[in-house]
Amino acid sequence: MAVYTEVSDEELRDFMAAYDLGTLLSCKGIAEGVENSNFLIVTDYSPFILTLYEKRVDEADLPYFLGLMEHIAEKGFTCPTPVRTREGAALRRLAGRPAAIVTFLTGMWPSRINPDHCAALGGAMAEFHAAGADFPMVRPNSLSVDGWRRLFEKIASDAADKVAPGLADEITAELAFLEANWPADLPRGTIHADLFPDNVFFENGVLTGFIDFYFACTDWLAYDLAICLNAWCFEQDGSFDRARGRALIQAYNAVRKLTDAELDFLPILARGAALRFLLTRLYDWINHPPGALVRKKDPLEYQGKLAFHRKVQSVRDYGFAP
Amino acid sequence: MAVYTEVSDEELRDFMAAYDLGTLLSCKGIAEGVENSNFLIVTDYSPFILTLYEKRVDEADLPYFLGLMEHIAEKGFTCPTPVRTREGAALRRLAGRPAAIVTFLTGMWPSRINPDHCAALGGAMAEFHAAGADFPMVRPNSLSVDGWRRLFEKIASDAADKVAPGLADEITAELAFLEANWPADLPRGTIHADLFPDNVFFENGVLTGFIDFYFACTDWLAYDLAICLNAWCFEQDGSFDRARGRALIQAYNAVRKLTDAELDFLPILARGAALRFLLTRLYDWINHPPGALVRKKDPLEYQGKLAFHRKVQSVRDYGFAP
Repeated sequence: MAVYTEVSDEELRDFMAAYDLGTLLSCKGIAEGVENSNFLIVTDYSPFILTLYEKRVDEADLPYFLGLMEHIAEKGFTCPTPVRTREGAALRRLAGRPAAIVTFLTGMWPSRINPDHCAALGGAMAEFHAAGADFPMVRPNSLSVDGWRRLFEKIASDAADKVAPGLADEITAELAFLEANWPADLPRGTIHADLFPDNVFFENGVLTGFIDFYFACTDWLAYDLAICLNAWCFEQDGSFDRARGRALIQAYNAVRKLTDAELDFLPILARGAALRFLLTRLYDWINHPPGALVRKKDPLEYQGKLAFHRKVQSVRDYGFAP
Repeated sequence: MAVYTEVSDEELRDFMAAYDLGTLLSCKGIAEGVENSNFLIVTDYSPFILTLYEKRVDEADLPYFLGLMEHIAEKGFTCPTPVRTREGAALRRLAGRPAAIVTFLTGMWPSRINPDHCAALGGAMAEFHAAGADFPMVRPNSLSVDGWRRLFEKIASDAADKVAPGLADEITAELAFLEANWPADLPRGTIHADLFPDNVFFENGVLTGFIDFYFACTDWLAYDLAICLNAWCFEQDGSFDRARGRALIQAYNAVRKLTDAELDFLPILARGAALRFLLTRLYDWINHPPGALVRKKDPLEYQGKLAFHRKVQSVRDYGFAP
């Protein structure tokens, strides 16, 4: 959760005057996303989401993120869609921060994940990949192998070992393995790269869309699937749920058939995804400014997931029989 | 800001099924109030606010608070109004907490206070007092003189002095003065007792209503005015703005004429109000659990306000000429 930047009523009124969105009735800071300040705005037309982009998002990337949302929305994939001012601007400034208004996506994220959710997610993810296939902009994944190395170099070994004894050595070995074994060529395209349950909305069991495209980038499509194996298919006790894994991969495969190489590499991609979240959580755990209004996420959850993927022999261990 | 309790989508759907509020479309934790968990719920009818009452609110007081909101709303004073289930219940349980849905009050709290805001507030406060006059329930103010003494006893002197050298002695002297000089009989009724700017909404400069009645109680009506002198009439630099003080008191007085005793006691009531917020902020400052998602408020702001009221000779120093 996060509301970092406060917006005065006068500033907001001036900002809103550039849009054709009706009369502003209310604005409330909401607990959505951990990177930016989000507000739910109600006008006499509809609710909207106002986002102020905080420091962790690179301003230079914002045209990519907003362009992607617009692009996939035009293709019929439901997601928050940037609203333009009467003069055509989607990205503006408010309270000293880059800011944008997007449409309000109804639905709620599912709290108790079952295989039906995973099946809906798999199908929607493949549709999202199809919708993004001809998106003309490119953004390298700054949180892939090279980025993990850079991030790990910023984490002192003794600080990591304080979180869990031996963790620094474990990460060193894992990074070396992934650098040596990361795929060099797989089907590539625009991925979401952060499809955790809180970024996928459902209404009465039906998936209504994705939100929070602020890690989207150009990378192996199957890496999105690998992230979701981590984020959606483990039980609270840390064990992997094959029924969810099967549902996720099957539903994806039914919309876009996975290649043999993608299936072969999936366990390695899943190790990479687990390491990515282990590293970012570990970094945040160690470096979080005191007083920041963010609930810190336990990095060790991903140490356990990483250990699971290391033992995986093939995609069959995820429940999928090609 | 605060969202403490998380509500699963299944729990929420079950909870909502008891109301005639249309189809649930969305639920977002919002940064409103610091005592409870608040969610903005959107149904195809309207937005609503769902509140889960956290530990700081005494469950036994909830029928008073909800009853008051219903009562004054019936009298035509705009405020969030409890919504009842088909079976007539306003107060229920959700995720292990007492919970209620109230109507959505449009408007936003003013960030840069000017005398017009204070005039609107003064008039509305007097109307609120009139609307509450025949509210049959009574709740003693647990944060009046006796309560301050009890709270101060829970704060170690050295902890207070660490916040500001000499603070413990200053509070000791102030408490003794207020215990000896607090009024014994003034016009009494239902007060809000927490009318800070974030609890008063405006839309295009027009006051739309009050929110957050969870400190409401039975006490001297003029004590509400004293709280607002503290909460609305000081500049950022700590100086008192007589134009705002005048606007506030005049507008109140135009709706309900203040008695001579109320005017005479106003500086003492204002000292009491300043001490009340100094003490609660000091207690929170010292005792706040690390990691709680609350921005701590500076207690020393109220030390300065208290010093100002101590020098006040009469209500004329607040800008009001009876």
